Amino acid sequence: LCQMQVDEPVRLPRLSRAAVCGGTHGNELSGVYLVREMLKPENRKEDGGPASLLMLLSNPRAVQQCTRYVDTDLNRCFTHATLNGPASEGAPYEIFRARELNNLLGPKGSRAAVDLICDLHNTTANMGLCFIAYSDCDWVCLHIFRHLQKQMPDTPMRFIHFDVSTKESYSLDSIGKHGFGEFLPFIGPQPHGCIKSNIYTAMREGVQHMRDWVSCFNSGESNVSMAQLPVCRGFKTSKCFLSQDRDFCLLRPGEPLFQTFSGETVKYQGAEALYAFFINECAYYKKGIALSLARKRRVSVPSIPSVSISSRFIYIYLSM
Amino acid sequence: LCQMQVDEPVRLPRLSRAAVCGGTHGNELSGVYLVREMLKPENRKEDGGPASLLMLLSNPRAVQQCTRYVDTDLNRCFTHATLNGPASEGAPYEIFRARELNNLLGPKGSRAAVDLICDLHNTTANMGLCFIAYSDCDWVCLHIFRHLQKQMPDTPMRFIHFDVSTKESYSLDSIGKHGFGEFLPFIGPQPHGCIKSNIYTAMREGVQHMRDWVSCFNSGESNVSMAQLPVCRGFKTSKCFLSQDRDFCLLRPGEPLFQTFSGETVKYQGAEALYAFFINECAYYKKGIALSLARKRRVSVPSIPSVSISSRFIYIYLSM
Repeated sequence: LCQMQVDEPVRLPRLSRAAVCGGTHGNELSGVYLVREMLKPENRKEDGGPASLLMLLSNPRAVQQCTRYVDTDLNRCFTHATLNGPASEGAPYEIFRARELNNLLGPKGSRAAVDLICDLHNTTANMGLCFIAYSDCDWVCLHIFRHLQKQMPDTPMRFIHFDVSTKESYSLDSIGKHGFGEFLPFIGPQPHGCIKSNIYTAMREGVQHMRDWVSCFNSGESNVSMAQLPVCRGFKTSKCFLSQDRDFCLLRPGEPLFQTFSGETVKYQGAEALYAFFINECAYYKKGIALSLARKRRVSVPSIPSVSISSRFIYIYLSM
Repeated sequence: LCQMQVDEPVRLPRLSRAAVCGGTHGNELSGVYLVREMLKPENRKEDGGPASLLMLLSNPRAVQQCTRYVDTDLNRCFTHATLNGPASEGAPYEIFRARELNNLLGPKGSRAAVDLICDLHNTTANMGLCFIAYSDCDWVCLHIFRHLQKQMPDTPMRFIHFDVSTKESYSLDSIGKHGFGEFLPFIGPQPHGCIKSNIYTAMREGVQHMRDWVSCFNSGESNVSMAQLPVCRGFKTSKCFLSQDRDFCLLRPGEPLFQTFSGETVKYQGAEALYAFFINECAYYKKGIALSLARKRRVSVPSIPSVSISSRFIYIYLSM
């Protein structure tokens, strides 16, 4: 699909089944509270969006404990290997839950999988609203992104591309129809276990605009979009940050990057100016990842179903 | 002591034993990293401060797991009842640890207790550097506070008085010599489980200024100080916050306070304009406390050992 000529309009099937998930990490509260709110009977209005819109709390046990996960990170359990491996009785809770979700929303890689999965996350980094997707030619996802950019001009918004194969993709959104509409909106900064009204409101607005776009798309109206995508290289350190809150600012060689606990400054040693993001994401301390880096590049997005092409800067993934 | 005439200079014994504690809550990382840094041999310099300065990680198991506590909140375990009650084998880990710490730094209420306990905390609220003490006439503590205010003029700083009796006082700092030098500097905003360089640096600087003041005090030089103290009333709710980050701004009757998840605004219904703090502190969600309120009042602080009196606005505690 990615090799197709972008000046040809793309015809895509209707998005008849979609899912909005919150609480995949139980202490990322915006999605938890938003899904709970949307599940209230008075809010389950029909708006011409997907014929079937499923709202769910992905990891209810972790939500109850207000912790990222109970036994292991649920959002790393959706590889083919983990979903299809032997299930022993003492396996982590999240392995069982991942299989349940795969039955409900997948099976991953099959025609039965839902058409669109939007999995809501928070970050302690100052990343604004950030889409992360495994594909840089997921037109549905890119068009939704562009629609949100237009509708929410005051919210900083980026599209990040993680270049991981379907087989190796590990997150909940990867069990949706591959190549279309699987994305993780991250929004921050917000401490895990906390909820801030501005972050919650932006997420609620974003989800509503996504539903509006799907509704418009399903009705056959055309939309033109474009996007920005990166992928990231992790630093194996978690010193203090001078770059705090400077997500998506250009980091130039020789610029101050870290501050050690004794007060010394460590400079960025790379040869190329790059964009830092996920700066000081709390949940990545354990992995020793202090920040991620991205190169910006331009992608072209075809119109749906029949309009002109447009192009924009995107962020390129840098493998480790 | 509090009834004494403030125009009489106060003569106090030397502060010969002091403790700086971090990690009483294992996911409040500024204190954890600062204590670790200060424990390094190259940083254990003699600077004429307390004859014996003990640095310790209060809850090493919680620190290891990067969680507030393992079984129960350690910083609620230092009441007389909990420290002296019967110890069953299946009791929470923190009860045992509280007793260990009481043996090391206390016993609470005894002459053997250390002269000064400074227990380092973080908050997700936007509180700057905030001293919390059980006394509004703890001259040592007030003088240290005033010294920090002078030395760090760019750091917002407040002194909060929690009017709790010695017997009912529950936090680690309460096992130091009662009425003198027991305080919890809170500093924020910082997500729990994260470390920000500006917050870490301010805490390090604050602890150094405290040591300098103690050194100066022990050498017999005089210091004049004053302070600001509040105490708080908790709201039994944890809706979204419009007042986010507005800690210590005056909250007037009828002003917007909360936003509900459906988008409605809830106004402050109190009859009196008060100061809100601990706004959206993550760890207080479980208790249903969304913020605390304080009234400001003026306290007078006598000189040590022989100088003039000064007075300042302080915050008054409001009981629930």
